[in-house]
Amino acid sequence: MPELRKDPVVGRWVIISTERARRPTDFQREAVRIKNDSCVFCEGNEDKTPPEILASRREGAAADGPGWTYRVVPNKFPALRIEGDLEPAAEGLFDRMNGVGAHEVVIETPDHRASLATMSVDAVTDVLLAFRERLLDLKKDPRFEYVLFFKNHGEAAGASLEHPHSQLIATPIIPIMVSEEITGAAAYWQMKERCVWCDVVRQERRDKQRLIMEHGGFVALAPFAPRFPFETWILPSKHRSSFEETEDDELRGLAELLGEFLRRLNTTLNEPPFNFMLHTAPLRESELDYFHWHLEVMPKLSNVAGFEWGSGFFINPMPPETAAAALRGEA
Amino acid sequence: MPELRKDPVVGRWVIISTERARRPTDFQREAVRIKNDSCVFCEGNEDKTPPEILASRREGAAADGPGWTYRVVPNKFPALRIEGDLEPAAEGLFDRMNGVGAHEVVIETPDHRASLATMSVDAVTDVLLAFRERLLDLKKDPRFEYVLFFKNHGEAAGASLEHPHSQLIATPIIPIMVSEEITGAAAYWQMKERCVWCDVVRQERRDKQRLIMEHGGFVALAPFAPRFPFETWILPSKHRSSFEETEDDELRGLAELLGEFLRRLNTTLNEPPFNFMLHTAPLRESELDYFHWHLEVMPKLSNVAGFEWGSGFFINPMPPETAAAALRGEA
Repeated sequence: MPELRKDPVVGRWVIISTERARRPTDFQREAVRIKNDSCVFCEGNEDKTPPEILASRREGAAADGPGWTYRVVPNKFPALRIEGDLEPAAEGLFDRMNGVGAHEVVIETPDHRASLATMSVDAVTDVLLAFRERLLDLKKDPRFEYVLFFKNHGEAAGASLEHPHSQLIATPIIPIMVSEEITGAAAYWQMKERCVWCDVVRQERRDKQRLIMEHGGFVALAPFAPRFPFETWILPSKHRSSFEETEDDELRGLAELLGEFLRRLNTTLNEPPFNFMLHTAPLRESELDYFHWHLEVMPKLSNVAGFEWGSGFFINPMPPETAAAALRGEA
Repeated sequence: MPELRKDPVVGRWVIISTERARRPTDFQREAVRIKNDSCVFCEGNEDKTPPEILASRREGAAADGPGWTYRVVPNKFPALRIEGDLEPAAEGLFDRMNGVGAHEVVIETPDHRASLATMSVDAVTDVLLAFRERLLDLKKDPRFEYVLFFKNHGEAAGASLEHPHSQLIATPIIPIMVSEEITGAAAYWQMKERCVWCDVVRQERRDKQRLIMEHGGFVALAPFAPRFPFETWILPSKHRSSFEETEDDELRGLAELLGEFLRRLNTTLNEPPFNFMLHTAPLRESELDYFHWHLEVMPKLSNVAGFEWGSGFFINPMPPETAAAALRGEA
């Protein structure tokens, strides 16, 4: 019997086809393979990107030249523009504003063929420190309400360049996906006076069946009502709403867990394309009791079709219990 | 300057990259081409599907044999099961219920190579009459709250069989996409005492720039804040909340408009893959002042990536004004 399951935060129902459950390897699709040897993000091509905003450089190495371990640069084809004011206006009954925002690329390593799964813990920690620094800097711009970090890995997941990179987009509006989480989590708090994600972590650590791994103050788990096969949440074990409040040593713990998780994902699903998205509290909120920052990882293994677009229900043929077991190395 | 636009019903913001606007033909991708000559949905293969629920048959032709113009059959691999009760239950803090529902396939024509764009108006009208009849029948089952009709056309849009067909899934829960529309539209009604879709139709008929066509009591328009290039809404010009209340002659008007719209879509975008989804009022609602049924058509021309999944913002490089002009034959 298929099962309907409700996400405890946003109330979204998904259909888990428990009876048609396939083996983890059945979800493998074409592996992400590096096709070229170099690109505009490689060392030596610094003049091919807009001037860097932030970088980790060898002592004495000049900006926008070689000698770096990561670089943050403006996206050359930004979805939103850094210049100008919002100028919200009506067009009859409709509402519009100027597309003001920031769109930056975090080039994670000079090595075209590396990835967060193969980079050293130091290097991944540095990338996470760069996320935090950009967040703190963009917070100073009063036009912005939110900064979303995300990664498109592999062409099927929307990557147009294969060089390891993530992106951020700062928006003048809190994204609806985040405000739905806030609404749901605030309602849960109102009822229980507890953070819903803290409750989820507690239950999953006790139950173990959807727990993937736990390390360095972080937990990786398969959510109870995942939209996609092998969807994973990574979150701090202890309550914290804002990513930018994370300490250096905590980010190191996250770097260790993330690297190990991605290596397991690569083994289990044969180097799958994937996306990740960082959900942190909105910029203008101070520490919130009811919001818990988290990283959502979604391997790109299937296509979304009419039923999903029309209903918001997702049909997921992989029960999260089976996915978690596979990622624990038990399948 | 890119523009942020808000959907007037659900409040979703999208980013319209007006300045990077490309020509309509730049959005073309691999055309949907029929590869096989016959399949399990073809005439003569009636025993390859589960027994039919409804069909239009030549006088005297026996059920589940040849001599039909459309057939409705249960989906052989249903997402939800027709048998059983919901048995809602808790699993710690989580909520689940049995995946009870109906999943049916509307085989639109015996002709493997036809489509809603090439079928006769009579034949398309019959298919729409079948939609209405299935809706009225499933409404009698007290376990169901909603029936969603949808179509996946072309492999990229999620079709696993190329024979012309649409599907319905009846669910015991109102889909979140529909309840978000209901919430938004009810709030609009509260403020204005007018249906938001009626207001949209009025404004678009006056403005004309996003109007694609108008015929037989129906309007096709490019929504102000579309998620995807060439996204289109088709809706009755006069207020009506429930598809099943539509009269025979009105469905004929819709069949004419839909066929013409799809022919224009095929010409403009070179036989694109697409999805459509029918949003009608929930089964247990009588005629609602604030809900207006509509068909959403979404050509499948691009992939959704990390930013969209993480934020709920969609980046749409095709302004709806340009898309509508192209579909009017002006580009």
